[in-house]
Amino acid sequence: MTRILITNDDSYVSPGLYLLREAVEGLGEVMVFSTEYPRSVVGHTITFSRPLRIYEVEVGGSKVFVTDGTPVDVVHLARDVLGFEPNIVLSGVNVGDNLTLQHIFYSGTVAAAIEAALIGIPSVAFSACIQSFSDFEDERLRSVVKRIARALARAIIDNGLPPGVDVLNVNIPPMDRFSNCVRITRAARLRWLSTYIERRDPRNRPYYWLSFKAVEPEPGSDTYAVDVEGCISVTPLSIDLNVGKVPHRELEAVVSRYVEGFEVKRLWL
Amino acid sequence: MTRILITNDDSYVSPGLYLLREAVEGLGEVMVFSTEYPRSVVGHTITFSRPLRIYEVEVGGSKVFVTDGTPVDVVHLARDVLGFEPNIVLSGVNVGDNLTLQHIFYSGTVAAAIEAALIGIPSVAFSACIQSFSDFEDERLRSVVKRIARALARAIIDNGLPPGVDVLNVNIPPMDRFSNCVRITRAARLRWLSTYIERRDPRNRPYYWLSFKAVEPEPGSDTYAVDVEGCISVTPLSIDLNVGKVPHRELEAVVSRYVEGFEVKRLWL
Repeated sequence: MTRILITNDDSYVSPGLYLLREAVEGLGEVMVFSTEYPRSVVGHTITFSRPLRIYEVEVGGSKVFVTDGTPVDVVHLARDVLGFEPNIVLSGVNVGDNLTLQHIFYSGTVAAAIEAALIGIPSVAFSACIQSFSDFEDERLRSVVKRIARALARAIIDNGLPPGVDVLNVNIPPMDRFSNCVRITRAARLRWLSTYIERRDPRNRPYYWLSFKAVEPEPGSDTYAVDVEGCISVTPLSIDLNVGKVPHRELEAVVSRYVEGFEVKRLWL
Repeated sequence: MTRILITNDDSYVSPGLYLLREAVEGLGEVMVFSTEYPRSVVGHTITFSRPLRIYEVEVGGSKVFVTDGTPVDVVHLARDVLGFEPNIVLSGVNVGDNLTLQHIFYSGTVAAAIEAALIGIPSVAFSACIQSFSDFEDERLRSVVKRIARALARAIIDNGLPPGVDVLNVNIPPMDRFSNCVRITRAARLRWLSTYIERRDPRNRPYYWLSFKAVEPEPGSDTYAVDVEGCISVTPLSIDLNVGKVPHRELEAVVSRYVEGFEVKRLWL
């Protein structure tokens, strides 16, 4: 029996979680397990310096597990404490896109998917270009998410992911610009450049608030597919940050020239 | 003039920060900028939902900048608020290793280096197999860290990083097992598997504390170099999580078979 773990980083209150549950109905045994509070932009946080709790609540007539930890914690708690060994992990649907490597590194939604991949479980992160939970009431969005999520879950259950692919990062465009298309894309590097707004507090001391200068979408990238073409973007990702043999050789040569007194050698020949 | 930004995730109180400052003395203009409190294992957290403060303090006779944000925030605050555009970012020296992809994704020390890489700045993350700040008093450790950090900073200032390499992840073995060697390595996937200790609180309710089952070091990997060979491990990393053309083609074929009603196309031909 296929076991599907559904989680997110917007907390168990998010309708996005239950939209994924609807999407995969009948495809296997489903566990919905999320966080007590929103843990957006926690990146890849794991909790080891304090203990965690697990609560059971009922949402829409079904059992949901909740923790005071992070999305990454959920992946481990589900397996080790609740004994639910998923064959596939679906994370989302996130409120707000997770386009570009930049957002992929920041996102708690993607972090849960990467954590699953680290322990060998294929996973998909879903994010939508929406602003709030109430946007999940849009019937067209619901139908589009259900169609793509069910199709990708079925594809992975039947075939696994292609060799070298660990995670699919899926972004859904705004429905008023959606052109009934899916694009297999590469993640662009940057979504924005930082800029800070400086203001003064009531005691006249400065504080700084992160603001954003948008980066133009590169043709062929995930941002281009979503922002310009109005398509669903599906980006295959590898979590292997290692580089090839050539840079290893080059690095050995350079480091050897600069380090004194230590023997320098590459292990990958 | 070369500008070197030094940061970490153990806060401005960590002697590891000042050890890196000593290591690069005379190589350029140096800014030390860290966090108010330890932000270990915050992963790639960026702060946008609240404003940030910047304080100036003096440590060891030199100016240090401090923020109530995260290591990732530091990289942006230094450039955008303080006008310090680094040519190289050094992060660490962390108390505790950051070996394997698993720790690389969790680590705040590495996250600062990855953030620098995202905006095109070469960076190095340094971590030592030590347990506490007082371990930085060991004269041999100080000398080894200074030698490798200065060599790598000089190598990057003179040559940049090899094409395809964005970050160097450096781990220093325990000094009682150090064999005067440096190994250019690949990051292993896992450092440990999770297991939770279940206990009961005073009200007899369960709580779960993350514990670890160590994974055997793979020959040739970063863990092997440090744990088995007693060498400094230097791992070149790419932050580009994108995969090659073949998986894009395969994914297009599979997704086309499962998605109904939407046109499916890969953008990378």
